[in-house]
Amino acid sequence: MRGRRGKGSEGFKVRTDLALESREAAQRGRRPDDGVAVREWREPGGCAMTEVRVKSERGARIMGKPVGTYLTMDLGRESGGDEGELLRAAEQLGQQIAGLAARVLGREESGFDGVHVLAVGLGNLYVTPDSLGPKVLGSLRISRNVADGEGGPIVSGIVPGVMAQTGMETAEILRGIIRETKPDLVVAVDALAARSVRRLGTTIQLTDTGIHPGSGVGNHRHGLTKKSLGIPVIALGVPTVVGAAAIAQDTVGAVAAALERGRKTRGVGAWLEQMGEEEQYQLIREVLEPELGQLYVTPPDIDETVKRLSFIISEGIHRAFYGIG
Amino acid sequence: MRGRRGKGSEGFKVRTDLALESREAAQRGRRPDDGVAVREWREPGGCAMTEVRVKSERGARIMGKPVGTYLTMDLGRESGGDEGELLRAAEQLGQQIAGLAARVLGREESGFDGVHVLAVGLGNLYVTPDSLGPKVLGSLRISRNVADGEGGPIVSGIVPGVMAQTGMETAEILRGIIRETKPDLVVAVDALAARSVRRLGTTIQLTDTGIHPGSGVGNHRHGLTKKSLGIPVIALGVPTVVGAAAIAQDTVGAVAAALERGRKTRGVGAWLEQMGEEEQYQLIREVLEPELGQLYVTPPDIDETVKRLSFIISEGIHRAFYGIG
Amino acid sequence: MRGRRGKGSEGFKVRTDLALESREAAQRGRRPDDGVAVREWREPGGCAMTEVRVKSERGARIMGKPVGTYLTMDLGRESGGDEGELLRAAEQLGQQIAGLAARVLGREESGFDGVHVLAVGLGNLYVTPDSLGPKVLGSLRISRNVADGEGGPIVSGIVPGVMAQTGMETAEILRGIIRETKPDLVVAVDALAARSVRRLGTTIQLTDTGIHPGSGVGNHRHGLTKKSLGIPVIALGVPTVVGAAAIAQDTVGAVAAALERGRKTRGVGAWLEQMGEEEQYQLIREVLEPELGQLYVTPPDIDETVKRLSFIISEGIHRAFYGIG
Amino acid sequence: MRGRRGKGSEGFKVRTDLALESREAAQRGRRPDDGVAVREWREPGGCAMTEVRVKSERGARIMGKPVGTYLTMDLGRESGGDEGELLRAAEQLGQQIAGLAARVLGREESGFDGVHVLAVGLGNLYVTPDSLGPKVLGSLRISRNVADGEGGPIVSGIVPGVMAQTGMETAEILRGIIRETKPDLVVAVDALAARSVRRLGTTIQLTDTGIHPGSGVGNHRHGLTKKSLGIPVIALGVPTVVGAAAIAQDTVGAVAAALERGRKTRGVGAWLEQMGEEEQYQLIREVLEPELGQLYVTPPDIDETVKRLSFIISEGIHRAFYGIG
Repeated sequence: MRGRRGKGSEGFKVRTDLALESREAAQRGRRPDDGVAVREWREPGGCAMTEVRVKSERGARIMGKPVGTYLTMDLGRESGGDEGELLRAAEQLGQQIAGLAARVLGREESGFDGVHVLAVGLGNLYVTPDSLGPKVLGSLRISRNVADGEGGPIVSGIVPGVMAQTGMETAEILRGIIRETKPDLVVAVDALAARSVRRLGTTIQLTDTGIHPGSGVGNHRHGLTKKSLGIPVIALGVPTVVGAAAIAQDTVGAVAAALERGRKTRGVGAWLEQMGEEEQYQLIREVLEPELGQLYVTPPDIDETVKRLSFIISEGIHRAFYGIG
Repeated sequence: MRGRRGKGSEGFKVRTDLALESREAAQRGRRPDDGVAVREWREPGGCAMTEVRVKSERGARIMGKPVGTYLTMDLGRESGGDEGELLRAAEQLGQQIAGLAARVLGREESGFDGVHVLAVGLGNLYVTPDSLGPKVLGSLRISRNVADGEGGPIVSGIVPGVMAQTGMETAEILRGIIRETKPDLVVAVDALAARSVRRLGTTIQLTDTGIHPGSGVGNHRHGLTKKSLGIPVIALGVPTVVGAAAIAQDTVGAVAAALERGRKTRGVGAWLEQMGEEEQYQLIREVLEPELGQLYVTPPDIDETVKRLSFIISEGIHRAFYGIG
Repeated sequence: MRGRRGKGSEGFKVRTDLALESREAAQRGRRPDDGVAVREWREPGGCAMTEVRVKSERGARIMGKPVGTYLTMDLGRESGGDEGELLRAAEQLGQQIAGLAARVLGREESGFDGVHVLAVGLGNLYVTPDSLGPKVLGSLRISRNVADGEGGPIVSGIVPGVMAQTGMETAEILRGIIRETKPDLVVAVDALAARSVRRLGTTIQLTDTGIHPGSGVGNHRHGLTKKSLGIPVIALGVPTVVGAAAIAQDTVGAVAAALERGRKTRGVGAWLEQMGEEEQYQLIREVLEPELGQLYVTPPDIDETVKRLSFIISEGIHRAFYGIG
Repeated sequence: MRGRRGKGSEGFKVRTDLALESREAAQRGRRPDDGVAVREWREPGGCAMTEVRVKSERGARIMGKPVGTYLTMDLGRESGGDEGELLRAAEQLGQQIAGLAARVLGREESGFDGVHVLAVGLGNLYVTPDSLGPKVLGSLRISRNVADGEGGPIVSGIVPGVMAQTGMETAEILRGIIRETKPDLVVAVDALAARSVRRLGTTIQLTDTGIHPGSGVGNHRHGLTKKSLGIPVIALGVPTVVGAAAIAQDTVGAVAAALERGRKTRGVGAWLEQMGEEEQYQLIREVLEPELGQLYVTPPDIDETVKRLSFIISEGIHRAFYGIG
């Protein structure tokens, strides 16, 4: 309706917004990765962290992700949602945000006095798995309107809506607002697409590269980066969907593996697995037309996931910039 | 979280809530269908209609659907949403509802004076593709509280919530309400799962068999039928999701067909196609674990679909029972 | 619209749902109060508490409130909403709920193993100041559907809607559900009307008397009590509105006082103050017709108040019954 | 909370956003009105219309409204909401919008090919009586993203949020967006404050003067005008609240009139009526402190009013610019 759905092919590429998964895919493909550095650790009493650094254009090509730092916080599969756990996660997230923000601003981490942060809630409030950004903004403490020039961070916020609602690219809206209000930093919150259903609602990704063109849920985002907006952009995201094409591709892989296990069918499995991308695309296309690649997969309790994660993220931002909960 | 997700296996069966699709599957399987009667027509200036009548227990087994009448209204793929079109669809739907209601109540269609209709909005308001029922109820004109005993239908309504929100089966809630308020008829509105993405948002199904156990989006519904509630139940639904398992199964089929087209791989395709259901299940299970079968596929503009269809359905119910828009 | 508004006169009585305010009014009126006992204290590091006990039918007549216990927790005017503060308030509220629940159930407070609590969110989700109950239920942890008979409380929940949405009295809906699911206790959450704007959003009232007929925001509630439902009813509420008639009455009082201060007008002030209730009613009626007494007064940031208080109340209920946050 | 509430005194002035009511007040005050022209008529089969033209700065001072045209469409007190009625109102509103838009753009009314209209939904989605603007935008057909340069209007839209949510003035946000996207015309939709409860939900005002500083519900708006935005601004509004101060002032008036009717008290009534504004302010201040003037009065069924009116307005805008429903 109303032309909201794009051309069939644009959305096909089985994609992930998680650098961690891009890295895994690169490793599976045994592609050399000298442009990428990975570090893993666990915060004491906290969540497992992974930092993927894309260090060169060569690394960026391999990863399909721009040069920069991608931090992943793993909340664990059974992240239950008891409140103490949520607050601990918020605390840890807050530290990571503060560290990244200090780095991109070239400041000491110890405070953001006088720094003006524009928080942006990307996505569509009315589509549950795409509502993370607007939900976080709905809980965010805003201070620019009450700032008195006596210190403290200056936080403003906007929920720009999606293109089908506004007819405008988000970058257009933000460029205009930035020109008028002159923030120092954008913190953009968005729902992401993962490659694996195991990641849904269990991971927070934090990056200094902004929003990549084509990322996110629904009508794919245009880029929001330092280049397109003129100021640094930190992006915070949680995967809430997997593209339907990923399910189809995984099924092809599972069929290939099954054939490979069968004595008589062995060669066919290998054949299928090594089928070119174009041919796999033709296969999957038959399955997913007419909505090819635009359809997404999401769990039925996505409302609770979004609620829990938007709490962690809004409280994490509070801790990063205001210092307390 | 909180045990909301059921056991892995229960949700697996690649299912459809649409009798029309069950019928198509039965035909593809070349199963005999002497227990099922199908009639197709187009209302003058209106939508294409299909009536599937499951006439016997034998037909019910073949179809996997209880004995009864299933009407399908096809809104067309390009159902744009211009308002005149929506109102024409509502008009036609209203006539179908009135006809079915008159039949189950054993009344003349010409009026529902003094008839008490309990409208039920099934599903979860907070999960967009599952919010059709609550949205319809939000627009429904209720009259029981202002009925003056001088004629006119008596319409009451309830949005019972889903089990994860209430801890109760919907049938428990409705049985209690029915015992207290003694309606003559339940009209239940629900979001459905289709087998094919082509059906999403383009079809309204109307049946006198009530809600089947296991149907609907999200945490699968228990049955709401004349047997479980004590009064006739008309169910109105629109498919808003396709189970993720259906995508996987379709992909297996597409792979089989592709192999069959290849000269060298021909036999393997046939082999794959005839693979037993259990083996296919094992394959798909690998893909969709750990959320096996509970994940669903939905388009990114599902918010607009739900808005448009809930308008048609609430206006259709108004026309059926109040006679006017 | 559609007959939702009642007769003009029914809603006039300038009312308060807070026993604390009824008590103050009784004291101002110098009415004897031997049927009412009041106790005040402050929890260490916590909020000021007031307990009003209406001990006899005589006390009930004076107070215009049924016999029972009314606990008021004063959050303070500047209850900012920093999270630590919210959690401390939730902790204290939880203790009060647990104490009251234990008393009405005749149990030790130390646990609610096997006790079935039906939480009820009264009000209208779509009208901000009346949405407290539905919002609390939206955050409530439900356990009846996952209870395994091995202990722990059994919590179920329902958002019954208001009469204009359902055409049914809430008591009808609840009686039916209670008959089917046999809970031991109802915990009803509702938005209240206060007499004074100073109370808006700053007070939580907790009572073992249930919901009084005519209380709440919007289309006034019917009674939900042990008598009407068959099981004990604890009611939790927060004032979010003041009736418009209260503003008018206060203005008459202020005018009277002003006249009394003027030398020449002194007698007239006294005359106005002692004007009979019926005459004052005639005055206010001119002002507030045609919506007499149905209009309410609410602050523009009521959305934040409802969000903050619904967090405290849902967490308070968790603490009371599950023991932890 | 969080400094959202302004200083006590700023909001006091008993105000109306309706030019019709300003005119009535001016007439009651027997102020000369040579700078104001009023015309009344009824569209055949439609609603009563009033046009108030403020023709000079002198008229503007008398009215407290800027020079320009204010059209009022009276939907009638019993505007029931049957759909035919809503559509007729939308049709009539559409003609008025088209006429006004053509005039401010200096175009023929016959079409808006290539004209870029930026629709703005002012207010707070989360506070029911302030949600009219966001609700209208939620139903608006947007075309800028699918415009193909082959004609038709170019409609974009934004819901900027209120200052407490964004920390930014709406004018800042809009100026930025306008600079980036270069629309020809702003159509701003807003909830208004009336002086009389009789106007709530029964009137649509349409003006070419934009949004006046201090108007609207909740945290009062800054101005959005041709001067502040650089392009013409048409404002569409519906009164959904009355300031609490208006109720207090009306009560003072009613008391004065009552005293005037009494033989003994007659002089006092006149005295009260002629009391200076400052003294009346002191009186009302006692009543409404600490929320002086910021509180508003609204009916309990405001959700239905907003739903009905947002339907009429979004359909009216469709008719004005797209030509059809």
